Amino acid sequence: MPGQTVPRAWIVTLGNEVLLGEVENTNAGWLARRLTSLGVRVRRMVTSPDDEESAEIFRDAVGRVELVVSTGGLGPTYDDRTMYLLSRALGLPLERNPAAEEMVRRRVAERGFQLTPARLKMADMPRGAEPLENRVGTAPGAILRHEGTTFVVLPGVPAEMTRMFEEAAARLAGMWRGPPCRREATFQGIVEADLADALMELSRDESVYVKTQPRGQPGRPGVRILVISFEGRCDEAFARLLQAARAAGGSALE
Amino acid sequence: MPGQTVPRAWIVTLGNEVLLGEVENTNAGWLARRLTSLGVRVRRMVTSPDDEESAEIFRDAVGRVELVVSTGGLGPTYDDRTMYLLSRALGLPLERNPAAEEMVRRRVAERGFQLTPARLKMADMPRGAEPLENRVGTAPGAILRHEGTTFVVLPGVPAEMTRMFEEAAARLAGMWRGPPCRREATFQGIVEADLADALMELSRDESVYVKTQPRGQPGRPGVRILVISFEGRCDEAFARLLQAARAAGGSALE
Repeated sequence: MPGQTVPRAWIVTLGNEVLLGEVENTNAGWLARRLTSLGVRVRRMVTSPDDEESAEIFRDAVGRVELVVSTGGLGPTYDDRTMYLLSRALGLPLERNPAAEEMVRRRVAERGFQLTPARLKMADMPRGAEPLENRVGTAPGAILRHEGTTFVVLPGVPAEMTRMFEEAAARLAGMWRGPPCRREATFQGIVEADLADALMELSRDESVYVKTQPRGQPGRPGVRILVISFEGRCDEAFARLLQAARAAGGSALE
Repeated sequence: MPGQTVPRAWIVTLGNEVLLGEVENTNAGWLARRLTSLGVRVRRMVTSPDDEESAEIFRDAVGRVELVVSTGGLGPTYDDRTMYLLSRALGLPLERNPAAEEMVRRRVAERGFQLTPARLKMADMPRGAEPLENRVGTAPGAILRHEGTTFVVLPGVPAEMTRMFEEAAARLAGMWRGPPCRREATFQGIVEADLADALMELSRDESVYVKTQPRGQPGRPGVRILVISFEGRCDEAFARLLQAARAAGGSALE
């Protein structure tokens, strides 16, 4: 869709256990791949604790990126504070969301749990949030649009997160432009420095991402070339690099 | 070391390829574990692109955390801009560091590479940086102290990063307090909600991190309890949780 600007995103992981090195954060990487494939430029991935630090990050994102996807902090325990922190960040009241309460009541019943105040708390959301049902666990997520930034709030359990992300993606279908173009090649007989001039030239074009990496053994140098563009501008950049690689005596590997 | 405050850290990964989902960020998790084991409270992990966004993050960290560990962006190509971005962030001139140049010259010779201007650029560092030799690759890292915040700048290649981190850790030995205390138990016959009152009580003590997680199957509930404290205050919190778990009829698993 030429002419349309590429949406930008921050991925925010709320999780003291990640910061303490107790848990590996696999959600952020999954979301980076998935958002990229939808045509979103991920500008920042942040992991932060369940406290004011995360509220500050939510606040910083407003008006700066079109999309924030958060994971974690939606459960029934006292340290599950994402909805509260998002409310504070955006200056919105935190209130019981009737549709979310309905979801919690249904899931609690289906799973044979007791409906405790702690579980009902999972239906408290910033005013204006649209809840996302959790069909794997219990805690609902939310979509919240605020001053040009859309927040997608997801749980931290990967199986819940991925499924609910897809539901959010379907609801936000108008936002996606489709995957960026991508070209890749590996050359033998050259080193990265042989491409320096071409790379410098291409670095002026912010709509094209170009990455080179050494791919050889001692005495047998090689370079991998990768071109990605959300604006569909891969071909020209790729051709320029191939030309430079060949001029330096490189031969393309199959 | 009672009375001493716990140093706080941000871990910053510079890498467009992580944001594009091309590469999994394993450095940040490794550093979170390692810094925790040294007694550092990691407050934020950020991945950001090789542009002004990262300079902003460096700037934000000054005076706010005692330590920033960055990885990535130290190579010879045009998008390896970490030293430049850090210079800009701190308002320091970027200049050729003689000790770093010596390291680059030695490593380039040892590895049989040509000494190109692009490779020499790897010796450009913010004024005042102490270079860290790269004994695996070529690009030196750096330690830079600035207004109460120490920056440790490391390459993105994991084998280089981990080795150079240990060298930096040895040089910064006065900063480490040793690992936090840690207590863990799993109980059968209770659910997380049974511990809610005890957890609420303990949540008031910011020096203790307490996490509970469901660990049961349907009909056989269970809860894992984890207590971590950089201030060495695990025992009391752990005892309070064990008491609550037993009062609710839980039995500890071996």
